[in-house]
Amino acid sequence: MTLEQQLLAHNDQHADANRRRFQEAGVRVVNLLSSPGSGKTALLEALAAAALQGPGGERPLRQAALVGDLATDNDARRLQAAGLPALQINTGQGCHLEAAQVGRALDRLEAEQTPLAQLDLLWIENVGNLVCPAAYDLGESLRVVLVSTTEGEDKPLKYAPMFHGADLVLISKMDLAAAVDFDRTTARAAIARVAPRARLLEVSARTGEGLAALAALLLAAPVTTLAGR
Amino acid sequence: MTLEQQLLAHNDQHADANRRRFQEAGVRVVNLLSSPGSGKTALLEALAAAALQGPGGERPLRQAALVGDLATDNDARRLQAAGLPALQINTGQGCHLEAAQVGRALDRLEAEQTPLAQLDLLWIENVGNLVCPAAYDLGESLRVVLVSTTEGEDKPLKYAPMFHGADLVLISKMDLAAAVDFDRTTARAAIARVAPRARLLEVSARTGEGLAALAALLLAAPVTTLAGR
Repeated sequence: MTLEQQLLAHNDQHADANRRRFQEAGVRVVNLLSSPGSGKTALLEALAAAALQGPGGERPLRQAALVGDLATDNDARRLQAAGLPALQINTGQGCHLEAAQVGRALDRLEAEQTPLAQLDLLWIENVGNLVCPAAYDLGESLRVVLVSTTEGEDKPLKYAPMFHGADLVLISKMDLAAAVDFDRTTARAAIARVAPRARLLEVSARTGEGLAALAALLLAAPVTTLAGR
Repeated sequence: MTLEQQLLAHNDQHADANRRRFQEAGVRVVNLLSSPGSGKTALLEALAAAALQGPGGERPLRQAALVGDLATDNDARRLQAAGLPALQINTGQGCHLEAAQVGRALDRLEAEQTPLAQLDLLWIENVGNLVCPAAYDLGESLRVVLVSTTEGEDKPLKYAPMFHGADLVLISKMDLAAAVDFDRTTARAAIARVAPRARLLEVSARTGEGLAALAALLLAAPVTTLAGR
């Protein structure tokens, strides 16, 4: 076994433990992935502000977030200010989140009065990186990859491994599509090529486009997850 | 020595060999770094199209590029179409370029009728990633980090290690600054905090803003480089 295989096997054990914990709590967990600056945090802020309904439409959607970054707790503070229970995970030099870090953050989250069983959705906002997080299972229910209209239509082809594992691809910053001459046909063709089984949604944190559809799609997904992507 | 230290020591040997080669040829070499989609390739296209003058202003600037991506040769083809000798390096799953890959690409470049000694500037467009390439010296004269107005003003604080090593920080996509409510004061303060010794320039590949200043600044830099960042 190579060192990389050993590291991934170790990660998979922790991912399995997280997965069991999520299944017991009945919470859907999203591993949210993108480049730096594609709008992961802005999307979560907008979802928190959108007063969305929970499953069955009988009460508000209950969400929380774990947020990975090399340094700063800027994102957790932004989300807390938006009304979302949020915890920061700092990775130092680390280019991705690992399942063990998520497990420890889950302990902190529950210790801080946010039991997993009382959530509909838990977001795990990964470190901004279109390469490294792809190989690390966190135990999530769904993998959602964001690519913004300002990044260029060929990014899925150039960072294909990340898109291979996506359950859902979001094209973000749709409000800027006209300003950057976004070519929807080319972008959709690129995504279809590297992520043929993924759903595709266009969203804008600024205008609210696609947010209700996104929440409905996530709530309709099964909690059960696939191990060993 | 840890495995990571061994890998970096191995890389440093190849970086030193590249550095000697650049010094003998008298060519300034830029390691160009950013997130995916910040506009590295668009900047090089615009520089190729700008009909800039070489050192002393007596003839056109002579440039070439090596371009790193996990997959596709899209960027090399874009640069060749813009008139720049360009070679693609595909890294597969690799999240950064390594000095040995650059060394092999230099052999190919020279075999394809682009001798280093006939260049003023050689660009090495790294894999789009604000984390991993920071630790890998390629033998470059200068490290230039791009951050676009569309990514958000706090990216330098969140991806600090990349900015620590920058000689020059470019704020790209200035043409979109108004559309995204770019906060110049906050962005400049963030850059100054994590890259206090770096020069700062605002550029736009679309309007040409800052391109002549960028070329002048690069040509004024010494060819000699610092080992062991």
